[in-house]
Amino acid sequence: MTKIKQFESEWLPKINELLVHQVAIDGSQEQLVAAMQYSVDAGGKRLRPLLALATVISLGKSVNVDVLKALTAVELLHTYSLIHDDLPAMDDDDLRRGKPSNHVIYGDALATLAGDGLQALAFQWVTDNQLTSTIQSELALKLAIAAGPAGMVAGQADDVLNENNPLTADQLRVLHENKTGALIHYAVESGLIVGDIKPSDRQQYLRFADDYGLAFQIYDDVLDVVSNEQTLGKPVHQDADKNTYPNLFGLAESKRLLKATIADGLAALDQIQKSQGYDPEILRALCGYFKIEEI
Amino acid sequence: MTKIKQFESEWLPKINELLVHQVAIDGSQEQLVAAMQYSVDAGGKRLRPLLALATVISLGKSVNVDVLKALTAVELLHTYSLIHDDLPAMDDDDLRRGKPSNHVIYGDALATLAGDGLQALAFQWVTDNQLTSTIQSELALKLAIAAGPAGMVAGQADDVLNENNPLTADQLRVLHENKTGALIHYAVESGLIVGDIKPSDRQQYLRFADDYGLAFQIYDDVLDVVSNEQTLGKPVHQDADKNTYPNLFGLAESKRLLKATIADGLAALDQIQKSQGYDPEILRALCGYFKIEEI
Repeated sequence: MTKIKQFESEWLPKINELLVHQVAIDGSQEQLVAAMQYSVDAGGKRLRPLLALATVISLGKSVNVDVLKALTAVELLHTYSLIHDDLPAMDDDDLRRGKPSNHVIYGDALATLAGDGLQALAFQWVTDNQLTSTIQSELALKLAIAAGPAGMVAGQADDVLNENNPLTADQLRVLHENKTGALIHYAVESGLIVGDIKPSDRQQYLRFADDYGLAFQIYDDVLDVVSNEQTLGKPVHQDADKNTYPNLFGLAESKRLLKATIADGLAALDQIQKSQGYDPEILRALCGYFKIEEI
Repeated sequence: MTKIKQFESEWLPKINELLVHQVAIDGSQEQLVAAMQYSVDAGGKRLRPLLALATVISLGKSVNVDVLKALTAVELLHTYSLIHDDLPAMDDDDLRRGKPSNHVIYGDALATLAGDGLQALAFQWVTDNQLTSTIQSELALKLAIAAGPAGMVAGQADDVLNENNPLTADQLRVLHENKTGALIHYAVESGLIVGDIKPSDRQQYLRFADDYGLAFQIYDDVLDVVSNEQTLGKPVHQDADKNTYPNLFGLAESKRLLKATIADGLAALDQIQKSQGYDPEILRALCGYFKIEEI
């Protein structure tokens, strides 16, 4: 079994179990819990908690239940953003990960509240554990900045407001740095915070995180062009009028940009290994998410 | 000038200025900032931060800019809940505090995002200050519990799902403890946390907070029956089919219950003064919000 398969087979079941069971424990309203569970249990790749865990593990730190809970919080935040993003008032998507969107099953009101509840719960999970107050408060602060109006929500607003308004390359970069990049940046950062690495030693990890986030968005845009609905599990060719990398740069240049971005991220990991002595092999393996040979 | 007028004239301008200016500093997307500012600047009574400040002051602690920011965060949380509550998918209210609701001005998508951003920002404000990590992490945890799926959002879900389904007195109590009570409880609790009062000494303060929260909801329900739109600043007689105290107990019994609840809250304050030696006179004065002689 490869290292990455071993890593995933160890951690994915624990992440999934924690998400479904702990959400039920932390919620008191039956239908609301059902709506929250429906989306956290909808089978995502759990890339964000995996990135966080791979970061902690690269630092040689062990992962107990408290670390797992704190680092899985980012998946609650991500799930809330998907639920709200799919609402009729937003992107109006009826399909998510091959299943009906939350609001299709539970209605717009409960879907709105399920998202709201998951956001609050993310902040609960980073502070309701046995980690030190210093770690908890830094996690909460950095999560708030990543998720908030200078982070993810700013990107969402840019996306919604500029749907029919062509952006420049710089504007598109800012949009994606906020909308997708901020939370992936936070995922890696949360591993560094839990691993108690001082800010001046975080630079190459965060360079990797930012490359990963950018690559993630370009890859998603490219997949929308080259895939079909069955393999992707959600509607494709939705982006014809949207601000995407293929629409702005063309498909070939987007693929080139994707490869260059991944290469820069891998170079950051090489430098971490060489200069800092950490072993980021699982982070390296998580770049396997980008199947660049298939696009 | 009475003590309460003096207190309000000292703190309301500071709260209002902080809300409007800091939101602009913490947000990066122009329209999103405008939408958030519109609602935080819509002239609420600021009861929750005032309760928090009155609690700290009763403990003899001073209030600097960091304390003010941490304790004003609850108003961001409250404002987000109002924006989402007014959405067409939820209560579909076009008027709030005498002005058009957020979504009427900014559209449903940006209103949803403005609410999402304000929730994240509330967690940022309790952790992005010079208070100790111990205080910051407890504030974030208690705010998450109050706002989350066993708190405010659970109450909202109960409210939305039972609009045409009569509740028992117990069910109605739980609904309001969550929907309105949890955040008022947190407001007072946040003052105790910042004031560094140990949990075993918080009991009477939290009894006061819970009475205040219950009274607040009964009073709101009663006002809907006895007021007109002009004096209330929002549509009235909206609650004919809803689960309210007047609908469940009748108007006279609701007024009696309101008075008894306020009396119990004041008794808690008397006990704080007598047994703990603190001076909760501004909390006492904040009960003047309930104009029971006028209803």
